Amino acid sequence: MKISFKNDYAEGAHPAILEALMRTNHLQQPGYGWDDYSVAAKELLREKIACPEAQIDFVSGGTQANMLVIAASLRAYESVIALETGHIADSETGAIEAVGHKIHLAPPINGKITPESIHTFATNYTNFPHQVKPRLVYLTNATELGTCYTLAELKAIYECCQAHDLLLYMDGARLGSALVSENNDLSWEDVARYTDVFYIGATKNGGLLGEAIVISHPDLQKGFEYHLKQRGALLAKGRVLGLQFLTLFENGLYEALARTANERMKAIKKAFAAKGIKFLTDSYTNQLFPILTHRQVAQLSAHFDFYEWKDIDESHRAIRLITSWATTEAQVGRLVEEIEKLAD
Amino acid sequence: MKISFKNDYAEGAHPAILEALMRTNHLQQPGYGWDDYSVAAKELLREKIACPEAQIDFVSGGTQANMLVIAASLRAYESVIALETGHIADSETGAIEAVGHKIHLAPPINGKITPESIHTFATNYTNFPHQVKPRLVYLTNATELGTCYTLAELKAIYECCQAHDLLLYMDGARLGSALVSENNDLSWEDVARYTDVFYIGATKNGGLLGEAIVISHPDLQKGFEYHLKQRGALLAKGRVLGLQFLTLFENGLYEALARTANERMKAIKKAFAAKGIKFLTDSYTNQLFPILTHRQVAQLSAHFDFYEWKDIDESHRAIRLITSWATTEAQVGRLVEEIEKLAD
Amino acid sequence: MKISFKNDYAEGAHPAILEALMRTNHLQQPGYGWDDYSVAAKELLREKIACPEAQIDFVSGGTQANMLVIAASLRAYESVIALETGHIADSETGAIEAVGHKIHLAPPINGKITPESIHTFATNYTNFPHQVKPRLVYLTNATELGTCYTLAELKAIYECCQAHDLLLYMDGARLGSALVSENNDLSWEDVARYTDVFYIGATKNGGLLGEAIVISHPDLQKGFEYHLKQRGALLAKGRVLGLQFLTLFENGLYEALARTANERMKAIKKAFAAKGIKFLTDSYTNQLFPILTHRQVAQLSAHFDFYEWKDIDESHRAIRLITSWATTEAQVGRLVEEIEKLAD
Amino acid sequence: MKISFKNDYAEGAHPAILEALMRTNHLQQPGYGWDDYSVAAKELLREKIACPEAQIDFVSGGTQANMLVIAASLRAYESVIALETGHIADSETGAIEAVGHKIHLAPPINGKITPESIHTFATNYTNFPHQVKPRLVYLTNATELGTCYTLAELKAIYECCQAHDLLLYMDGARLGSALVSENNDLSWEDVARYTDVFYIGATKNGGLLGEAIVISHPDLQKGFEYHLKQRGALLAKGRVLGLQFLTLFENGLYEALARTANERMKAIKKAFAAKGIKFLTDSYTNQLFPILTHRQVAQLSAHFDFYEWKDIDESHRAIRLITSWATTEAQVGRLVEEIEKLAD
Repeated sequence: MKISFKNDYAEGAHPAILEALMRTNHLQQPGYGWDDYSVAAKELLREKIACPEAQIDFVSGGTQANMLVIAASLRAYESVIALETGHIADSETGAIEAVGHKIHLAPPINGKITPESIHTFATNYTNFPHQVKPRLVYLTNATELGTCYTLAELKAIYECCQAHDLLLYMDGARLGSALVSENNDLSWEDVARYTDVFYIGATKNGGLLGEAIVISHPDLQKGFEYHLKQRGALLAKGRVLGLQFLTLFENGLYEALARTANERMKAIKKAFAAKGIKFLTDSYTNQLFPILTHRQVAQLSAHFDFYEWKDIDESHRAIRLITSWATTEAQVGRLVEEIEKLAD
Repeated sequence: MKISFKNDYAEGAHPAILEALMRTNHLQQPGYGWDDYSVAAKELLREKIACPEAQIDFVSGGTQANMLVIAASLRAYESVIALETGHIADSETGAIEAVGHKIHLAPPINGKITPESIHTFATNYTNFPHQVKPRLVYLTNATELGTCYTLAELKAIYECCQAHDLLLYMDGARLGSALVSENNDLSWEDVARYTDVFYIGATKNGGLLGEAIVISHPDLQKGFEYHLKQRGALLAKGRVLGLQFLTLFENGLYEALARTANERMKAIKKAFAAKGIKFLTDSYTNQLFPILTHRQVAQLSAHFDFYEWKDIDESHRAIRLITSWATTEAQVGRLVEEIEKLAD
Repeated sequence: MKISFKNDYAEGAHPAILEALMRTNHLQQPGYGWDDYSVAAKELLREKIACPEAQIDFVSGGTQANMLVIAASLRAYESVIALETGHIADSETGAIEAVGHKIHLAPPINGKITPESIHTFATNYTNFPHQVKPRLVYLTNATELGTCYTLAELKAIYECCQAHDLLLYMDGARLGSALVSENNDLSWEDVARYTDVFYIGATKNGGLLGEAIVISHPDLQKGFEYHLKQRGALLAKGRVLGLQFLTLFENGLYEALARTANERMKAIKKAFAAKGIKFLTDSYTNQLFPILTHRQVAQLSAHFDFYEWKDIDESHRAIRLITSWATTEAQVGRLVEEIEKLAD
Repeated sequence: MKISFKNDYAEGAHPAILEALMRTNHLQQPGYGWDDYSVAAKELLREKIACPEAQIDFVSGGTQANMLVIAASLRAYESVIALETGHIADSETGAIEAVGHKIHLAPPINGKITPESIHTFATNYTNFPHQVKPRLVYLTNATELGTCYTLAELKAIYECCQAHDLLLYMDGARLGSALVSENNDLSWEDVARYTDVFYIGATKNGGLLGEAIVISHPDLQKGFEYHLKQRGALLAKGRVLGLQFLTLFENGLYEALARTANERMKAIKKAFAAKGIKFLTDSYTNQLFPILTHRQVAQLSAHFDFYEWKDIDESHRAIRLITSWATTEAQVGRLVEEIEKLAD
């Protein structure tokens, strides 16, 4: 079988998580997120982000988190501003529209949304009551194109949102990878301070499944658990989620795993760069988008699994490679070997 | 801490499941349910129910399963017939109404729905186009009151549904407990044959989380995975669900665990009966509803956790006790000891 | 053709409305409810109900009004308390569930809802977050059974709602008939004061079509026009609705028409009573529910159209008769004649 | 007051409609569209479009028609392809998303959608089950930019839809203006044959309110009246809508009114052309989009009401002018007079 660089969820969980599940398995605990592990994990996360009033809930996946946060935050006539490449716009089977909300599509700049395009949507959609009212900005960090928001960028976006009475929501499916990226200057506190709500992804960073929704805006906290239950997101054995976050955040495991994922990709990036190969975006995380000739794509795909992202011109195509905490040095070594053999 | 008889999800998973997770943890697998374990588990289940054309999908919980099945099966103006005590009617925060459908409430007879009340709703709601059109019957087996449907009862209900062009959907959160109940005469094949769609619950019978939705009616299969994704039910690491069902069904573990749960309860039932205590329903599964005096309730609640179900008269209240595969003989022994001490 | 006592919308509009349409037909006016007639009609209504801060919008029909008010007022997990006989529960094709909300069904007492049953629902549905949260009480005045709420009854219900943090919404499809009923002691001001939102029906009292939604609770006013447009309720030629309400309320026409409808029914009621015939409810409006033998039903239905409401016992059935502003004395005379001939 | 060229719904109805309302006012008729006028009007329309199996329903407005048709036609995961300038995309407060469906936005070519962009969406959205499935193409004729589809264009679009298993839906808010346009070669039969469902607008062509939804595709007919009622679109006095369509289609009045609207605009267009003024699109209907200097816009807006559509460059802006059946020669004369005076 080919080695997969297709995604960061090809393996199971970090062993420490499975061990924690084993260790606590026979202890009786309350259901629905009232277990000791969930309670402790929430407390730990609130400290980490320095936001004691934050409400935190654990859910099973990213689409579920996005659907819940947006459905619970908006009135029926309010809309979302997101990137064309945003996960909610492109890869979630219309989950946001299915709960009733339009998404305005902004063009990505190095994979990122800008205050300028937010401003444009906020000022263009004002024909009351014939047009929806933009109310929430959705962004992903790290982005779907492997890039990250700097502190200055996030602050500028947040201030733009404040100026236009817009909520800011960060999809953190790969937040770990972003926050330990070599170019990153955002802290956990910054993320909480300069958003109204965000989620911390564990599925793609060591967990079996699980995302932690963190709501700092008080208006958005009200009744949120009702939404969880109504939309089928409240697990009977909430302990399964709580225990994973507790394990990941007790000893810095979360960041350590993300660091491994990024380092694996750094070695791959270096190999492509050495061949003079260009990239679709300027990425320093666990996602890389090298632009290859068709022949080069074929050479790599003989040995590895990955997504062919999009055509750049008649003879070139960007591919997407992803590493994870579980990617081994040996797997990277094999890939580098093949990169070095690529035809010009 | 008190011993809990509150539910069958107070512990983690059966150890065989955690071992399987450990064993397969580092193998790379495709995401979203295309992993080898899910594929094999589906095949195994299709054989077990003798329905090779069934479509099977794994989801995280019962409310999610119910919401998905009903939303995917009905047109906007179609409604559901269920019991007042049905899980969807009483305990899922309006999940069915939230996806647009009215539930007609039938009165339970020994915890069960009858062809008579189905017939009544089907024939009363005919004022086109001013009334919704009943289209799906929801029942739970074992029921929310611990009882089970016999083959004759299920066939009669299914035939009534066929006569009225109604779909029949069985919520099998505790299907294991029902099918191994001492009074049961339903087989796995019967369940598939005399319903249009049902689900097999693992959360309450040995799993960490997970329910297997089994769709035998071909019209309901179309596009079902789109619904899964759109409603946030498609796990990236679908292997977590597939592997659990594979483990539970490879060697009869699923039935063995349910049998343990039922046997534990049988001992408890015997102890109540020996004291001349009556029951709310005639249950032979892992749920029991003894009718106690207020003083008796207080005596037990000093030592154990359980739900106080409902008042029967001014001096009596039915409580709900639940056992599971993880309930130990020692825990049952403690409970029996206290039952024997109950005041008259 | 048989004379119809089936409903109060069998004819067109009161001639004064058609004349007003003629008279203003060629004047250019802004669309979407910004026309002079709508503006003036809203002002007139605000004065009539002595509630200068009320927001008023005109829509086309009762189901539309109910769906809009409830959808705009509730969060996803909030539910409605209504009568089993309530129009939203029985005759609107699940319109409320279609916008996501469960309806709890209370039993009618003389066609009316009571503080006791409101209290029961509000206190029973508290299993957070597994049950919906009751948030709005829906009642109809005059009721679907021809009865009316007294001031004392409405105040008691409103106070019960306030105590339980419930909104009170009155469906006024036949509000005119209620407020001019001989036993009524409610004023227009009372209706506005002791509800949070209500609507005034014109379709059944002289209009071609049209209901005026009156929102006194400030939180419910926010963004309401967005909902109107989004749900297809905002007419391009809003003038058609505004002009009708202006005509109906400028010179007391609305009350005069309702009075005619009630008086026509009073004559009919007297004829039934003279025969010793009993009624399903104690009605003093334009709806009457006499309880007849099957033979009597057949005798009347040979000459008149009406609904057969429900079976009372093996030999008796309640029918529903409705009069309107357009019912003539001659039509009533014919009916009285046949009532007098009824067999015992 | 300024003369308005802002829209085609500034006046009331054609007098023949008001006369018909007067004439039939006191006749008792069944409610909810079962009246004689509605029945006759549907029969008349079926003949006109030569489609005896078509199902026809009358509703109050265009947004309502669009929401109903699309909600009733699509499964939850299916999406709509429309123009960026499409009415559903830009001017209906997210009504389509509010009933759960994503709209893909295609760029307009002379105001029209092309088979090429339909093909692109149909072939790009295939990542099952992570992306919605395009299922319906929405187009407007005449378009929002005053242009019309030719027979060849409509056939090519319909064939593209058939090839991709897409439904084709035509919004006919201004269908009259399109079909009597001097360049039009589409017949009523063509419209029915080369679409699956369309609506005929009366609000903007002589009616008080009213659109006739015509469903030729048999699968889309099933249960449609349930949707009407559930979404608040079924008028108690359906006669009001039926009678208008009967009046408009009995003697060719519908086409005559549209012809008047177009002729009024033709005179205006000629005046602009004589000044050498260019147009945003090549329109032969009752909508015109001249491109003016800011000074010219100011000159006209001193005397007339109209929409300023969009900026073309730093010194030019397109405005939108609309005429209707009610626009008088005198009003056009005044406008032409001012056009002739426009600065260069």
